[in-house]
Amino acid sequence: MQILNNPNKNQWSEILKRPTQTVGDIEDIVNRVFSDVRKEGDKAIAKYTERFDNVILDNHTITSNELDAAAANVPIALQEAIRLAKQNIEAFHHAQKTTRIEVETAVGVTCWQEKRPIQNVGLYIPGGTAPLFSTILMLAIPAQLAGCKEIVLCSPPNKEGHLAPEMLFAAKLCGVTKIIKVGGIQAIAGLTFGTETIPQVHKIFGPGNQFVTVAKQIATKFGVAIDMPAGPSELLVVADDTANAAYVASDLLSQAEHGTDSQVVLVSTSKNFLHKVSEALEIQVKSLPRRAIAEKAIANSKLIYMEHDVVALDLINEYAPEHFIICCENEDFYVQGIVNAGSVFIGNYTPESAGDYASGTNHTLPTNGFAKAYSGVNLDSFLKSMTFQKITQEGLKNIGPAIELMAAAEGLEAHKNAVSIRLKDIFNY
Amino acid sequence: MQILNNPNKNQWSEILKRPTQTVGDIEDIVNRVFSDVRKEGDKAIAKYTERFDNVILDNHTITSNELDAAAANVPIALQEAIRLAKQNIEAFHHAQKTTRIEVETAVGVTCWQEKRPIQNVGLYIPGGTAPLFSTILMLAIPAQLAGCKEIVLCSPPNKEGHLAPEMLFAAKLCGVTKIIKVGGIQAIAGLTFGTETIPQVHKIFGPGNQFVTVAKQIATKFGVAIDMPAGPSELLVVADDTANAAYVASDLLSQAEHGTDSQVVLVSTSKNFLHKVSEALEIQVKSLPRRAIAEKAIANSKLIYMEHDVVALDLINEYAPEHFIICCENEDFYVQGIVNAGSVFIGNYTPESAGDYASGTNHTLPTNGFAKAYSGVNLDSFLKSMTFQKITQEGLKNIGPAIELMAAAEGLEAHKNAVSIRLKDIFNY
Repeated sequence: MQILNNPNKNQWSEILKRPTQTVGDIEDIVNRVFSDVRKEGDKAIAKYTERFDNVILDNHTITSNELDAAAANVPIALQEAIRLAKQNIEAFHHAQKTTRIEVETAVGVTCWQEKRPIQNVGLYIPGGTAPLFSTILMLAIPAQLAGCKEIVLCSPPNKEGHLAPEMLFAAKLCGVTKIIKVGGIQAIAGLTFGTETIPQVHKIFGPGNQFVTVAKQIATKFGVAIDMPAGPSELLVVADDTANAAYVASDLLSQAEHGTDSQVVLVSTSKNFLHKVSEALEIQVKSLPRRAIAEKAIANSKLIYMEHDVVALDLINEYAPEHFIICCENEDFYVQGIVNAGSVFIGNYTPESAGDYASGTNHTLPTNGFAKAYSGVNLDSFLKSMTFQKITQEGLKNIGPAIELMAAAEGLEAHKNAVSIRLKDIFNY
Repeated sequence: MQILNNPNKNQWSEILKRPTQTVGDIEDIVNRVFSDVRKEGDKAIAKYTERFDNVILDNHTITSNELDAAAANVPIALQEAIRLAKQNIEAFHHAQKTTRIEVETAVGVTCWQEKRPIQNVGLYIPGGTAPLFSTILMLAIPAQLAGCKEIVLCSPPNKEGHLAPEMLFAAKLCGVTKIIKVGGIQAIAGLTFGTETIPQVHKIFGPGNQFVTVAKQIATKFGVAIDMPAGPSELLVVADDTANAAYVASDLLSQAEHGTDSQVVLVSTSKNFLHKVSEALEIQVKSLPRRAIAEKAIANSKLIYMEHDVVALDLINEYAPEHFIICCENEDFYVQGIVNAGSVFIGNYTPESAGDYASGTNHTLPTNGFAKAYSGVNLDSFLKSMTFQKITQEGLKNIGPAIELMAAAEGLEAHKNAVSIRLKDIFNY
């Protein structure tokens, strides 16, 4: 496997390029589905479910009987694992609750900030070969903690027209209020406009393929908020000779198995370590069930030798990895210095898998360099920060004249007048 | 003026409709400007500045000499008013700082959340008849408090090729690091791609006309975050007979003078009060310099009589006003019950103008019903929340088996393996 040797800063953007996708063609399809769902509601939902998922459903909504029956089909040990994960995720997100922030900015002028829940949220969980119940935990737990009233889950039905029992089990456990068997563009369109079956929501969360990603982007045009734009998952590891090459290889592969377009980068100030990981990768990949996918992703991966930690940190911040593992003796240097990353994993016994499932942090994170501006999903993603203020007569005396001057300077006389009319009364008392 | 009498819930969406704009044509222009700026950089910036602003500039960047000279052209009293506003805004946004949140979710599993600044931000300030220096305070103060490294301000030059001295004064006072005389679509494109003169940024803030709004939406396609989608400004007042009709009319007019498409709604459980405000509006509007604008906006305004507070609150939450003034005896009912609003103003001496300029709260707020899902700009708008975790050997013993089970159930064997390879070593110690 090729090792990049201390690349110059002007090469970084080329080296760190993510696979780009053209969305032009997809937008046409998305617009058509949106227009149909908006006009025809459930009829269009059924039509596209038949076309894209090859299933004809009488009823897209999961009944309470189906929900109650699910647990019987989930092994007890897995149920317990899910409960443990829930407990940790809940503890970490509960700690993120903030209290009202109140400041008397001037005498008689009291301002405060409070957070209130987004009332209706939609959670999208992709279908595919495996049931991604872990993402249900990551989205439904903070939604419930935040106090969202309606928590709607959409996920495409499998060929038999069902959702996996693990998903139903997790959804019930985490307080999802409605589950609908609908996937892809039509699910996002349904959540955007509402149909007879699908409630209209104010914000849509969750990962998906490029059709879902473009659909979420289009949804924002219709006034629906989204958690963040999505891209293929990615991992950057910085490690030195104190790290364990086999562990690092296993982490890189856990990322690589997601898809052929997954991004895997290893940065090290030790050439020797890079060679050791390269060898470990070649051995470990052979025994993976998803070997074909992982091999392709690994072929596109980058092993980068950097002479200096300071420059390595610059490169990492320039890349802005979704997942960032630090296995270095001087781990504090990287922990303090990282400004652009979704989630950071520190030390030899902190695999990325821990955060994917059960340590308590959220696994819905900004990819594709979006960590430069976006947070991963957290409790605040389900809340809005609102401001309040109450001013007394004395307060308006204190700040009113400044408001009058500023409003007049901006040419907004009615703004000024709203203060003047009150000040006149106050001074005449 | 027409008073709507206790409208039925199924009429609400029609009554509360905002003026809609078609963005189809605008998108074509925006895409062309974006493509040109991406290819030609400053050359395209100069071309569009000449075309749209009718100005030919040798240099788009404000020099430090120009910046230093600005204060001399701002009246001392106005300088002091701006300083007072800055002090209050700073106090309120400083109080929003959060500390690291750390939880040991299981023994040996330590997770924490920390906020780190978005490194490069762009602030867009519209041009037009008056210099909107107050918006500079609202954006640059939290950006500086958050610790953003590069704070770039773009605003269109006036016909003489200058920016107003009040704007330069405010920008310097609040730590803006670079000021560029460029407006409209080309400014947003420049901040998105970077040019020889304009630094590329990670997030763009600020209001603008519909061209700027669409440009910001398009910018998100290229990986740049934005504060929020924008629409015409709006105000909803709920008031009863304890309120002062002249004050309420002055508040409604302060909103109405923004533009003919501004939204003004008054809700009351007192028909008598609605009539009094209607009369006061007709008198006050006559003396406004922006009377023509305000009259048109007032003509589209709604005065709504609601029989019950409970239903009135429902209607207000359905509307999700940007600005919400409460002048009622039972103000607590509305303060507690409002879940969808940008900023809330309570009592007879709290005009919206206070929050627009100097009380300390931010005036960059979600319009167009976006308050259902979006926060107004606050300190966190300039920060990203990142998560960190560090797991000990004991910690991995505690949660590792659950991770293995869950990863296997999702068909992700390499995820499982990243834990197994470590657990094997730990148990062999």
